[in-house]
Amino acid sequence: MSTSRQHQQQFASDNYAGVCPEVWAAMAEANAGHATAYGDDAWTARAADRFREFFETDCEVFFVFNGTAANSLALASLCQSYHSVICTQSAHVETDECGAPEFFSNGSKLLTAPSTDGKLTPAAVRALATSRTDIHFPKPKVVTITQSTETGRVYQRDEIRALADTSRDLGLHLHMDGARFFNALVSLNCTPAEMTWKSGVEVLCCGGTKNGMAIGEAVIFFDSKLAQDFDYRCKQAGQLASKMRFLSAPWLGMLADTTWQRNAKHANDCAQHLRTQIADIPGVQLMFPTEANAVFLLAPEDKLTALRERGWRFYTFIGGGARFMFAWDTELARVDQLAADIRDVLR
Amino acid sequence: MSTSRQHQQQFASDNYAGVCPEVWAAMAEANAGHATAYGDDAWTARAADRFREFFETDCEVFFVFNGTAANSLALASLCQSYHSVICTQSAHVETDECGAPEFFSNGSKLLTAPSTDGKLTPAAVRALATSRTDIHFPKPKVVTITQSTETGRVYQRDEIRALADTSRDLGLHLHMDGARFFNALVSLNCTPAEMTWKSGVEVLCCGGTKNGMAIGEAVIFFDSKLAQDFDYRCKQAGQLASKMRFLSAPWLGMLADTTWQRNAKHANDCAQHLRTQIADIPGVQLMFPTEANAVFLLAPEDKLTALRERGWRFYTFIGGGARFMFAWDTELARVDQLAADIRDVLR
Amino acid sequence: MSTSRQHQQQFASDNYAGVCPEVWAAMAEANAGHATAYGDDAWTARAADRFREFFETDCEVFFVFNGTAANSLALASLCQSYHSVICTQSAHVETDECGAPEFFSNGSKLLTAPSTDGKLTPAAVRALATSRTDIHFPKPKVVTITQSTETGRVYQRDEIRALADTSRDLGLHLHMDGARFFNALVSLNCTPAEMTWKSGVEVLCCGGTKNGMAIGEAVIFFDSKLAQDFDYRCKQAGQLASKMRFLSAPWLGMLADTTWQRNAKHANDCAQHLRTQIADIPGVQLMFPTEANAVFLLAPEDKLTALRERGWRFYTFIGGGARFMFAWDTELARVDQLAADIRDVLR
Amino acid sequence: MSTSRQHQQQFASDNYAGVCPEVWAAMAEANAGHATAYGDDAWTARAADRFREFFETDCEVFFVFNGTAANSLALASLCQSYHSVICTQSAHVETDECGAPEFFSNGSKLLTAPSTDGKLTPAAVRALATSRTDIHFPKPKVVTITQSTETGRVYQRDEIRALADTSRDLGLHLHMDGARFFNALVSLNCTPAEMTWKSGVEVLCCGGTKNGMAIGEAVIFFDSKLAQDFDYRCKQAGQLASKMRFLSAPWLGMLADTTWQRNAKHANDCAQHLRTQIADIPGVQLMFPTEANAVFLLAPEDKLTALRERGWRFYTFIGGGARFMFAWDTELARVDQLAADIRDVLR
Repeated sequence: MSTSRQHQQQFASDNYAGVCPEVWAAMAEANAGHATAYGDDAWTARAADRFREFFETDCEVFFVFNGTAANSLALASLCQSYHSVICTQSAHVETDECGAPEFFSNGSKLLTAPSTDGKLTPAAVRALATSRTDIHFPKPKVVTITQSTETGRVYQRDEIRALADTSRDLGLHLHMDGARFFNALVSLNCTPAEMTWKSGVEVLCCGGTKNGMAIGEAVIFFDSKLAQDFDYRCKQAGQLASKMRFLSAPWLGMLADTTWQRNAKHANDCAQHLRTQIADIPGVQLMFPTEANAVFLLAPEDKLTALRERGWRFYTFIGGGARFMFAWDTELARVDQLAADIRDVLR
Repeated sequence: MSTSRQHQQQFASDNYAGVCPEVWAAMAEANAGHATAYGDDAWTARAADRFREFFETDCEVFFVFNGTAANSLALASLCQSYHSVICTQSAHVETDECGAPEFFSNGSKLLTAPSTDGKLTPAAVRALATSRTDIHFPKPKVVTITQSTETGRVYQRDEIRALADTSRDLGLHLHMDGARFFNALVSLNCTPAEMTWKSGVEVLCCGGTKNGMAIGEAVIFFDSKLAQDFDYRCKQAGQLASKMRFLSAPWLGMLADTTWQRNAKHANDCAQHLRTQIADIPGVQLMFPTEANAVFLLAPEDKLTALRERGWRFYTFIGGGARFMFAWDTELARVDQLAADIRDVLR
Repeated sequence: MSTSRQHQQQFASDNYAGVCPEVWAAMAEANAGHATAYGDDAWTARAADRFREFFETDCEVFFVFNGTAANSLALASLCQSYHSVICTQSAHVETDECGAPEFFSNGSKLLTAPSTDGKLTPAAVRALATSRTDIHFPKPKVVTITQSTETGRVYQRDEIRALADTSRDLGLHLHMDGARFFNALVSLNCTPAEMTWKSGVEVLCCGGTKNGMAIGEAVIFFDSKLAQDFDYRCKQAGQLASKMRFLSAPWLGMLADTTWQRNAKHANDCAQHLRTQIADIPGVQLMFPTEANAVFLLAPEDKLTALRERGWRFYTFIGGGARFMFAWDTELARVDQLAADIRDVLR
Repeated sequence: MSTSRQHQQQFASDNYAGVCPEVWAAMAEANAGHATAYGDDAWTARAADRFREFFETDCEVFFVFNGTAANSLALASLCQSYHSVICTQSAHVETDECGAPEFFSNGSKLLTAPSTDGKLTPAAVRALATSRTDIHFPKPKVVTITQSTETGRVYQRDEIRALADTSRDLGLHLHMDGARFFNALVSLNCTPAEMTWKSGVEVLCCGGTKNGMAIGEAVIFFDSKLAQDFDYRCKQAGQLASKMRFLSAPWLGMLADTTWQRNAKHANDCAQHLRTQIADIPGVQLMFPTEANAVFLLAPEDKLTALRERGWRFYTFIGGGARFMFAWDTELARVDQLAADIRDVLR
């Protein structure tokens, strides 16, 4: 079984993929001799600068170990324990972080908006933010959106701008969970700046792991005042790497040239490829538009069981759909196999 | 300056070293194809099994990102917020974790014992544990010792046993902060089991980073009851790696054959080498016996300044000594340079 | 306006009432001379003993300041930060504690079950407890029910027993939020023991404030193992009164003879009185059966506005109903006024 | 024994005293009819206004249940979890709160200054605040002083001013733990404003319990910006009384006319009385100047045991002295008995 796990690709998660060559090379290059610990090294300085170029602004950059920590630390820095955070009911921070945002913030509540497609809307933000104004309910302070969404959709720039305007109007901060930041960026085909601070995003968690890194996310503050003492916060929360260069240098491989773009585009293309291959199957139901690297197939439980019996692994989304998620290294032939098996079992 | 940082070794910290070849090879081997995320992969299973062989017992093994988290999570699992943890005043958890143990436990207080050499004694434990028994003071619940100590000393097996006996007698758990576990193990020349559970240690944080890994510590529970739901604790606290294989596989390189031993022995030998070279300097004062990979030089501030002006970087210990800490890759010639410069400035 | 507030009764909350004579007398009696602080006094010992008689068992009793703290401390003692608590979506801990349960537990998530009448069911508990079993979601550990419910309903003994059986079966603790414990007890007309530990409740928060005390709730552990170190927990969380007698002695007035019974029965009777008076109004919609001291009137917003314009204060329940809540000192004539005004505006 | 506890005064704590008549009368007066809950009542408004008059400034006033909570909430509002609080090693927040400050702040560390007499000095603040500036140690953010001190001393106005200046210079907030605020105020014989905001105190916890109330402390923010959302903080932490009038109205009795003054002066006078009576005993050692309501007697353990055998209860201060603490209702005759017994056993 361990053999098949390693040799036959599965599309349950884009976390199943390994490290892409450019990132690996950057890590290898950083593994040269001695370097000062805890981020006071040349690689870390260069990686932070590279992010500033990438975003065309003098942002504050912090490197942490994973997305759970990145999002939770960012949210905790934007609110106190008696504040609350607005997100969709399908937001990863709500459904898959085991209470990490509440833990890091010492009790901030997540207020979840119903959402049919995984996107938050200005109307939903306003409704949640104004539903209660008494001290018996935690005061809303932050809005968090996931780009691309947990449903594989992508917020358009005007949608982000509208959320930012509503947030500002209500005295709320706007945070972006960018676990699949690059998949969304490639999909929108705009600049990183345009998808973030130019659209009103104040803090971004930029995910490297799903796009070809081994470990590591970056927390980007576009407003430096919000970043005050964030380095202490990271340290206290066990998110300061002693040999920091191994967390920062990989970003030099990721952000160099076209690595991030090529990886993300390949993943997105594979999702489109699967969709194209199965869209015409009679009776097939695809749950959301495929705008990034995910495809959700709605099918009766016995059909999903049949797929599993053919060896496929996948998660089922709230509501029942099988999620297929593609990575930088997905093999098209394996996607074809999946498509063929879906066709077979749905017949 | 970045050039000199990378090319001229410094002995301020054993965190300045990179990744040793065997560990790198294990990482590279793990970077093959797809693997299930979050630890449900073959590398992680093998690494955990390897630890069980290493410790000759069926222990519970968890892989986390760094030592701050490893220690804080382990301590938090052994006590509630209104309990307290006994350690020395020079313990790393007290002096250099930015309040991480208090954060992870939501408020557990550290009770610090005065210590001239960095070692905790049964008498000190008893004194602290019995000094207060009223509810206005947090109830002692855990004893934590650092092996090797922050002063470069090593607890002998009978010392650990005595601390374990005293702890048990007082209803306290015994935790070992093994940031430099391998340095101590090589120094004691006993089995890993003998230095831990056979001497009464219940939970160990075993440090890989300082002995040649890029990132990663292991939390080992020798009593499986104490490990209950620890996986949830790690997840919530942002310490569950999605691509876990890159956190676990390196241990296969570290624990294979003699890697850990060779790396730790080299670091310890370098410390002895420096000590030997400078011990005969008239008026030199070495603060503690050199039992692991550290040497502490007590010297007037102007002498230390003179050393810094020659380009050496080092931390000063509470009380004033310059700390030199050696790693798996320390170059003997560079140690000789340091010795020569010390001799020069102390003249 | 302050005059009307004090002289014209309002039924927005049973917290608007003052202290009943028996409780006041007990406080006055306790205000005699000196007494040892922090609960080591005769009044506190007697009050705890009185609770043991009341519940016919050797329970552990702790006196805290308010219901927010009582519930949050009790829940925190039953779970860790990475665990979760099952309740209804209308549970007070979810809707009106400003994130207190999350704060005291350092992050435990509340899992809310949809409920049309404010009651939790075994089926709902099972559904929530088994919906997720992976480490990315907080592990369910406690079930909490409110007796009487936020909707003015009362769990029957067999309903509590069924919830207890289901909880035990799923490895969950059963907690009862008894902010209106006495109203429910009078309604069920059974013994305190029968409504709690004989039906499987493990921890009870017994509310005194709403039934005629100034300040104070009691946390009762029917399983003494669960109470371990709970006194430290109270102290650390700012819930240990220095002059404890003033928090404990009032219970001697409340639990003596028939005070609790008379107070609660009067409140319940007033609710029935209102219901009876308005039930026959054509088109009137009463939201839930009136089983304790609350009546919920569903009416169009303009009708509710009209009521407010006549000087009535009330909260509106999720979904739109006006809540009227009666206390130990409610004047029947004032209830009649309310009924007359309701009749008027609904006409 | 319970009889003796109530009839024979003990001087172990000023918390042993009951409620003074004026405070009781204010409570009784508030127990009239209905009042809106959670502080939206006339008594609370008046009590807050009375505080503003008392301090001659438009301060923000919050009423909480006890001193543990008052101090912990105030400190938590002034710092984040990765910050630290500077106090003396004998500060109550350090020695007798069971880790409450760490709990409420989710991990802020207390940095303790050695102090021979319980007072903090500008030099000690500066030393602690500048000893570490790296991110591995929590960043100092608050200075807290106890007025009067745990040693029965009183900070003079110029001492407070000097601490405030040093704090401001170092970017630290200044908090005053006024558990015995009135004892100090009577001792200094200045205005409340002069002892607080006019001397640079930003936040004060003003203790009512020890000066004749049953329950209750007030948190006073002299800078309203620091009070932002503090009401939410209180609510979430279980410190918002539903029947708030019983927590606020007593202050009307305390602050009216000369109640606070008379109570505090009597307690202070009793301490002077004891001191005068025993000062001339050959060999007697009194530990600190008696500036408020405490006397500390340093004596060999067998002498203290002899005192205990005569029925006296007292705490021993760090270092060995017996503490005698006087209250608003202390009987002079009983002080004379104590003096006689001390004279006897020390003979």
